[in-house]
Amino acid sequence: MIKKCMQQVRKTAPLVHNITNYVTVNDVANILLACGGSPIMSDEAEDVEDITSICGGLNINIGTLHKTSIEGMFKAGRKANVLGHPVLLDPVGAGASALRTNTALRLLKEIQLTAIRGNMSEIRTLANGSGTTKGVDADIADIVKEENLEEAVAFVKKFADETKTIIAVTGAIDLVSDGKQCYVIRNGRPEMGKVTGTGCQLSGMMTAYLTANPENHLEAAAAAVCAMGLAGEIGFGYMCKGDGNATYRSRIIDAVYNMTGEELERGAKYEVL
Amino acid sequence: MIKKCMQQVRKTAPLVHNITNYVTVNDVANILLACGGSPIMSDEAEDVEDITSICGGLNINIGTLHKTSIEGMFKAGRKANVLGHPVLLDPVGAGASALRTNTALRLLKEIQLTAIRGNMSEIRTLANGSGTTKGVDADIADIVKEENLEEAVAFVKKFADETKTIIAVTGAIDLVSDGKQCYVIRNGRPEMGKVTGTGCQLSGMMTAYLTANPENHLEAAAAAVCAMGLAGEIGFGYMCKGDGNATYRSRIIDAVYNMTGEELERGAKYEVL
Amino acid sequence: MIKKCMQQVRKTAPLVHNITNYVTVNDVANILLACGGSPIMSDEAEDVEDITSICGGLNINIGTLHKTSIEGMFKAGRKANVLGHPVLLDPVGAGASALRTNTALRLLKEIQLTAIRGNMSEIRTLANGSGTTKGVDADIADIVKEENLEEAVAFVKKFADETKTIIAVTGAIDLVSDGKQCYVIRNGRPEMGKVTGTGCQLSGMMTAYLTANPENHLEAAAAAVCAMGLAGEIGFGYMCKGDGNATYRSRIIDAVYNMTGEELERGAKYEVL
Repeated sequence: MIKKCMQQVRKTAPLVHNITNYVTVNDVANILLACGGSPIMSDEAEDVEDITSICGGLNINIGTLHKTSIEGMFKAGRKANVLGHPVLLDPVGAGASALRTNTALRLLKEIQLTAIRGNMSEIRTLANGSGTTKGVDADIADIVKEENLEEAVAFVKKFADETKTIIAVTGAIDLVSDGKQCYVIRNGRPEMGKVTGTGCQLSGMMTAYLTANPENHLEAAAAAVCAMGLAGEIGFGYMCKGDGNATYRSRIIDAVYNMTGEELERGAKYEVL
Repeated sequence: MIKKCMQQVRKTAPLVHNITNYVTVNDVANILLACGGSPIMSDEAEDVEDITSICGGLNINIGTLHKTSIEGMFKAGRKANVLGHPVLLDPVGAGASALRTNTALRLLKEIQLTAIRGNMSEIRTLANGSGTTKGVDADIADIVKEENLEEAVAFVKKFADETKTIIAVTGAIDLVSDGKQCYVIRNGRPEMGKVTGTGCQLSGMMTAYLTANPENHLEAAAAAVCAMGLAGEIGFGYMCKGDGNATYRSRIIDAVYNMTGEELERGAKYEVL
Repeated sequence: MIKKCMQQVRKTAPLVHNITNYVTVNDVANILLACGGSPIMSDEAEDVEDITSICGGLNINIGTLHKTSIEGMFKAGRKANVLGHPVLLDPVGAGASALRTNTALRLLKEIQLTAIRGNMSEIRTLANGSGTTKGVDADIADIVKEENLEEAVAFVKKFADETKTIIAVTGAIDLVSDGKQCYVIRNGRPEMGKVTGTGCQLSGMMTAYLTANPENHLEAAAAAVCAMGLAGEIGFGYMCKGDGNATYRSRIIDAVYNMTGEELERGAKYEVL
């Protein structure tokens, strides 16, 4: 089924509207093309409704939030809701500033979100209504490990259930839940944390997967997480002497570009709890 | 002559002012350096007139349009007109939203453009005054093929003649016309469409070519199109196992960097109708 | 000691707040990760004080200045001053426009800067209160060469002394002074000028070095300059047939990622005048 989710993306080439940060936007565009989707970027309030209307899904990322783009996020989100498009929120840095926390909370409240993808500190901030994230990475205390896995799964399931949203917490171990089931995914490599924006890229790709698989949102979200992690593994296998995080950045997207459904099915490491 | 146009860029190192989108801006800067030009980016209305004044050409790209940058586009465009600098418009997504369509139409009306480079859907939108582009790629019905080549050439010639502007429509077959002649160019590879921003990059490079060849704007524009397509062919030749669209992105710019005038002359595939 | 400065960055993983241009921001983020730091980007006035508060240092770069981000620069700068964080200014294009020149001069006057890193034209503009920079590269007359080295060192020392700021002028020969001593650094390769944003990247990395070495700001700044230049040399050694400036861009960051303290100590080419 993981394979099927991926093949649907290649088959339907979903057009994804991205309101995203200017740090990692180029990688988000290229990974969307790599996975078989098509990207368009627009955050101007006067532009977003038209753009969302021609797209199939909406990816909202608050990585470099501006007052003007906030307005665009709400306008696009409402339009996507009216049109029945999936909407993903990537709450980058929620907990690190009041503006980010409050904007993410307002989006969660006012827009019907299909999925939220973030690290555990960001997701806990949304669940608690406040947080103290120390940047754009998860705080050490929040990292999902084998020792705290049971508690983490319970938390993610509960928050997904309460919000009627797919919650995807990514890190060394990834959790993806719709409130009933929880995918526990063990793909990926620690070196991915040394490439800026792998999380943003995953959010873009996940939006394409959600858009292409309207009947299977939970599996589609889990498939995207597996695909990203597996791409990190495959890409790492191509690293040569002298290569570092900049080359790895390209290798990950390249691996998404070349990945087949069979490879994904074989390489995906997950259990469903 | 194609060769001469390229050599003039390397010889004169034109400084190009870019008001462009934040998705592909880094690649636009690097391809300008690769071809022998020099980039500067500025879109703040208070900044653009000073910046345009020290440059030789202006590249306006509406890929991520903001209300504030629109003002900058008009101010810079008027200043460039007063100074006699070439001005290129890349109407990204014209037809996909009212803001993009109307801004591109207003720029066409109020600024004396030297060239417009876009895909066929964007160019048809400008010619018709409205459009229904489905994103940032050309609609399938608009793609220039051998079957509709004659009609496409006639359309481009007519629009170029009416607007007194060089019209460059790029796709599988590229057309570049000043209203009298039309270059039909068959360089490039389909995989270039899987790299975000190859069109934006070409627009940046074309502005450098126009700036460096004030007496031969038509040939300069055609030479830039040939150089970009040939770079796609050469770069593809260096692709190895495991490489995908992210590595290809670098390979294309690398090929522009290493290309000689002789290589371009030999590799350019065009006829003039 | 150069080695120690670098190791402190890897040991303390300083979180750096960047208000920077959208052209080279992704490379700034990746080089910060490569050198052992951690980046966060935020320029919205309502967001910057919170973000600076959780960081250790602030990097202000005026490469694509907006009226809204100017407000953010001053708010963040004042907050960083209150908190005792190092603040670096990269006055990209000072001298090329009134807005850039005036903003850089106001930042120099109103914010207590720890360091300023720019090319000689930009630095002379700040020293003189006005300038005529021809773009984002140094004017030919301003380039530091063996012939004018003595005069250049004297100028940099004087300006550093007057402003109580570390002045880092980078080019073929790099100068880093606190007003008393001046490091004259001869690392690097001319091809680095064909990659957009190597200066911006150095500014980001230098902010991490300053943050991680509060007792040795001068040496830390010099160490960052050596590390960047050496990375250019090492990265160039990995260039293959067909590689150009786009691949070189990744090679430089890769070299920072893989560099050890011993390599830096051995490879750094500097004298102290």
